[in-house]
Amino acid sequence: MDGRFRVEIEGVDPQVDGGRFPVKRVRGDELVVEADIFADGHDRIAARLRHRRAEEEEWTEAPMTPLGNDRWRGAFHLGEVGRYQYALVGWVDAFLTWRAEMEKWVEAGSDVSLQLQEGAVLVKEAAGRARKARPKSADVRDLESWAQRLLRWADDPALAADPSPLAGPSGPLTGELPALMAQHPDRRFATHHPTAPLEVVVDRPRARFSAWYEFFPRSTSPEPGRHGTFRDARRMLPYVRSMGFDVVYLPPIHPIGTTNRKGPNNRVTCEPGDPGSPWAIGSEEGGHTAVHPELGTLDDFVAFREAAEEEGLEVALDIAFQCSPDHPWVSEHPQWFRQRPDGSIRYAENPPKKYQDIYPIDFETEDWEALWEALRDVFTHWMDQGVRIFRVDNPHTKAFPFWEWVIGELKAKDPGVILLSEAFTRPRVMYRLAKVGYTQSYTYFAWRNTAVELRRYMEELTGTEVAEYFRPNFWPNTPDILTEYLQTGRRSAFMTRLVLAATLTASYGIYGPPFELMEHTPREPGSEEYLDSEKYQLRHWTLDRPDNLRDFIGRVNRIRGENPALHRNDTLRFHPTDNDRILVFSKRDAGGENRIVVVVNLDPHHPQSGWIDLDHEAVGLRPGESYQVHDLLAGGRYLWEGGRNFVRLDPEVSPAHIFSVARRLRGEQDFEYF
Amino acid sequence: MDGRFRVEIEGVDPQVDGGRFPVKRVRGDELVVEADIFADGHDRIAARLRHRRAEEEEWTEAPMTPLGNDRWRGAFHLGEVGRYQYALVGWVDAFLTWRAEMEKWVEAGSDVSLQLQEGAVLVKEAAGRARKARPKSADVRDLESWAQRLLRWADDPALAADPSPLAGPSGPLTGELPALMAQHPDRRFATHHPTAPLEVVVDRPRARFSAWYEFFPRSTSPEPGRHGTFRDARRMLPYVRSMGFDVVYLPPIHPIGTTNRKGPNNRVTCEPGDPGSPWAIGSEEGGHTAVHPELGTLDDFVAFREAAEEEGLEVALDIAFQCSPDHPWVSEHPQWFRQRPDGSIRYAENPPKKYQDIYPIDFETEDWEALWEALRDVFTHWMDQGVRIFRVDNPHTKAFPFWEWVIGELKAKDPGVILLSEAFTRPRVMYRLAKVGYTQSYTYFAWRNTAVELRRYMEELTGTEVAEYFRPNFWPNTPDILTEYLQTGRRSAFMTRLVLAATLTASYGIYGPPFELMEHTPREPGSEEYLDSEKYQLRHWTLDRPDNLRDFIGRVNRIRGENPALHRNDTLRFHPTDNDRILVFSKRDAGGENRIVVVVNLDPHHPQSGWIDLDHEAVGLRPGESYQVHDLLAGGRYLWEGGRNFVRLDPEVSPAHIFSVARRLRGEQDFEYF
Repeated sequence: MDGRFRVEIEGVDPQVDGGRFPVKRVRGDELVVEADIFADGHDRIAARLRHRRAEEEEWTEAPMTPLGNDRWRGAFHLGEVGRYQYALVGWVDAFLTWRAEMEKWVEAGSDVSLQLQEGAVLVKEAAGRARKARPKSADVRDLESWAQRLLRWADDPALAADPSPLAGPSGPLTGELPALMAQHPDRRFATHHPTAPLEVVVDRPRARFSAWYEFFPRSTSPEPGRHGTFRDARRMLPYVRSMGFDVVYLPPIHPIGTTNRKGPNNRVTCEPGDPGSPWAIGSEEGGHTAVHPELGTLDDFVAFREAAEEEGLEVALDIAFQCSPDHPWVSEHPQWFRQRPDGSIRYAENPPKKYQDIYPIDFETEDWEALWEALRDVFTHWMDQGVRIFRVDNPHTKAFPFWEWVIGELKAKDPGVILLSEAFTRPRVMYRLAKVGYTQSYTYFAWRNTAVELRRYMEELTGTEVAEYFRPNFWPNTPDILTEYLQTGRRSAFMTRLVLAATLTASYGIYGPPFELMEHTPREPGSEEYLDSEKYQLRHWTLDRPDNLRDFIGRVNRIRGENPALHRNDTLRFHPTDNDRILVFSKRDAGGENRIVVVVNLDPHHPQSGWIDLDHEAVGLRPGESYQVHDLLAGGRYLWEGGRNFVRLDPEVSPAHIFSVARRLRGEQDFEYF
Repeated sequence: MDGRFRVEIEGVDPQVDGGRFPVKRVRGDELVVEADIFADGHDRIAARLRHRRAEEEEWTEAPMTPLGNDRWRGAFHLGEVGRYQYALVGWVDAFLTWRAEMEKWVEAGSDVSLQLQEGAVLVKEAAGRARKARPKSADVRDLESWAQRLLRWADDPALAADPSPLAGPSGPLTGELPALMAQHPDRRFATHHPTAPLEVVVDRPRARFSAWYEFFPRSTSPEPGRHGTFRDARRMLPYVRSMGFDVVYLPPIHPIGTTNRKGPNNRVTCEPGDPGSPWAIGSEEGGHTAVHPELGTLDDFVAFREAAEEEGLEVALDIAFQCSPDHPWVSEHPQWFRQRPDGSIRYAENPPKKYQDIYPIDFETEDWEALWEALRDVFTHWMDQGVRIFRVDNPHTKAFPFWEWVIGELKAKDPGVILLSEAFTRPRVMYRLAKVGYTQSYTYFAWRNTAVELRRYMEELTGTEVAEYFRPNFWPNTPDILTEYLQTGRRSAFMTRLVLAATLTASYGIYGPPFELMEHTPREPGSEEYLDSEKYQLRHWTLDRPDNLRDFIGRVNRIRGENPALHRNDTLRFHPTDNDRILVFSKRDAGGENRIVVVVNLDPHHPQSGWIDLDHEAVGLRPGESYQVHDLLAGGRYLWEGGRNFVRLDPEVSPAHIFSVARRLRGEQDFEYF
């Protein structure tokens, strides 16, 4: 320890849990870092932001600039997918202090002979440091010559009488000498913080901005009643692409168990021919690395993936770590499951309910290392087939240390891999899964319907530390969730929830075709399960029905694609209205040139109207400025003035505006003859 | 690493900067600790709060109880002054999980034979752990007998048909077995957090609750113009005590330099006989460990301290680490000061101002270790004379690592030592000084006058992490600060600022006699310096002037003493009023039985009236309850009903109410004949 380290660094932002977990960004971002940096007394300090790719030894340094109140800011560019590290360094800078004091002495007209001598000492020391680093560099000569000059000036009686020339352009206070000195600071007593560098995981842009479409390949056969195959499913791809999605997500594609197989509508018994649930994984035909024979072969899957990519669609697979009683692991690795005193394997339970078709994996097995490796190998098997996106089923029932390890392993293999966490459990658990490495996460969006619910939830997701590690992916429906809001069956309800999902967050998804065909009948009253759910039976969908929402969805996705403001969540701002059925929010892109204002009628039954108060600054407008808003959904254009404007939305016509906001750049004074 | 550690612990509160610094409490407090504690899945978990005195090896454990939403809380008692450590431990508890599931199975009437066998396994394992700890304990026998019982019940066909007796009082789900199992949990995979334990510094109660009176002993001579001595100063003690203070703080008592000594009103030159500033420390008669001969001898000082203690007053000394050019250290240790190229020592400067009577100490000296030890020895010298409270002058111009080290050294010598930081510098710097160990801190109170300023500042000090380490000590005036508010000279202004200082925070102080004699003339217009300040000259005070505020101050201090609500800051709550010149706030004691509501007219010139809205819950009353408020300052009693009540305060009469709130415990139904 040396007592001469006087600079303190604290309050570093961003960081997650004091650096225990990395923050998240995407390729192309700047990482902006702020910190409180200060020393005792009034000496000037300097600070730098150090950064490197995690696999590098050498640090690069970016400048930090003071924002006032001892807060400093710096930034660096995240050019590649992977992991970067960053840390701060600060020191008391004797030359900066000397220069600041000199400016005042000179301004006061004081005799600064002694100060010039002191400056010469500092410059000579810098020359010594420069010589040590690169003995023959021009800096050494330049610094030595400056030291001479300062000493000459110290002896100059004219300057003693009037020091003002020293403040001039060829003086020591501006221009060359300060720039030279900044290159060779005395950092013997520089404070580094934190001790262990902070980290940022840089994903590919799709980690932040993506539109998912989930469907069951087994329901894609052109003949009702026949099990669909990957070949049939290829016919869905142009349809999905036409709606503007970029990720096609398939429920598990593995062999389905027969023991205790569930029948339609989750009946405990099934009839011969019932296909079972794709989440009851494993049969004598294989487990998590096999393909369900009724869907086709591994080659068929790969052909499907390639066909999807030709359509500009990326395939996401569902990884559900649980086993049917027929899964090969049950006999090969019985120690990975919990044994009961009678020798049986413990099936899933939620007393008094029993799920006898599912064996959960025991993460407290003594054989946990082999188990972890086998689970990792499931992912890598599918990565070897070209899959780079996974939706993970119920990750909250598997140990967190496993996820932290396995996601690290997968990112080492391919830093572009994306994992979506399907957890609807308690908030701390959902957030922890994101902290340990999940790229995107399911959310409570399905149960947030009113303006205050949506606003509060979005403020938690985008306005707190949560935004540093948790990337929400909003789903209006899933095979497990047909919300009460959608059970109204109203077209406007589906449109509203789609617009909210697609514009509140940069990533969202729908479970189709039930979504766009507006399926809305629950299994029984009070249930959020679909009647005749594809989870337990084949369905046949009539996609060319005239009421299919595909065109509307396509328009929304096109608007998303064309407006960078909608590719991010951090610029989200809500704006007040006098009608709490109307939600108004805005987003801007990084440059601030693309501005979107979304106005949604949350009431699917009645027209709603009201005054909205647009916060100019949040939208990137000047107060009092008039501007044009263009409804990208319905096509209307309006000239708005000031923040206060009237809106009316009839759910029978269109429950939402998605306005692009254009500043009016020209006035009459720009006109040639003015 | 073992992958079976499934419990995660995060979000621990309290902690400062992730555990980098200790939190602060006083002897007798409970330390309440909360954390997010959770595991994957639905298994039950258990958690404990571990704590020990820092010098102990062994941990003690207190229970943690769940508050919902994965938040847990525990507490332990801080019985002694010193440093304690605390940390958390949590584990998945198989028995708790078994018991919770059993309750549901039994309620559903299921056959639980297998579950009983599983329970027997868990109990047998616990017996094994108990045997390992204390082979012959009763617990071993009891657990083994419980295991037998469970196995017998598993074979009982009557229980297979109707398990409901298992939920009874002699069953395994309540009473003896759960209590036994809680004594012998399986903690092989228990998660400990954080890795390094957190710390709490426990001070004596005066660290939190204290009333300071500062005066210059040299102005206590009964004869105008003669330098006062410690003997003279003893006559001040009954006067100070009569006002209810408990700390007497003296400006530096050391020999004063003669070189470049300042004259009255900070004049650059002095006349023969001018006494100089006590902060220009050191002459040929000695430095920081010597006593200024004009005040007396070291023995005189000790006698003064003892006399103060007989009056119930504790003496605080001022430690100002700077030297006059005549200080012995200047010749003995010239390397502790910054040399200039001409061989001179650099005096204090703030260009274009020069303070040639003061040499700052150079904390970047290569001889920093010897310097640190010498500075520590200044403190320990005075501790050896019985001083346990120090007010430290300008600590923000000395390196933070020095303070962290030296305060550690002093607390090792006497954990009851109290250090008050005199820093009016930037917020981060002030807070850092508190983090590195200062017991109390000066604040910006002097410059917070309006309701919104006071409310915001108090919310920052008491409602954020700041409250964990920063103990504010409010001063309405100091020898350096005669605020514009006090320069109005109005009696009501002095009373208002006194009430605010004495009730907003648990520690406060005044610089007297100028305060109670309402000195209010600045050195020049726009200045906050006192005219004819005692800093540069002797003064003679007429304490028996009839307008002396001593009685009022005495009443306020008596109210403070008698009301434990005013001994703390953490229960402070502000209440709305419809007149922003009226500030209303409340405090409660730990038990909630002592309730104080303070109402202050912030306008020293005019009567102000308005409606206040008392938040019942914050005051500890039931909504709609009527209650009695008793003005402890003026003596009035009022029956208030509901939260909304009218107040009027005339500054010419009394600018504040300090209400004690009494719940009306009796009604007509309590009356004998009702």
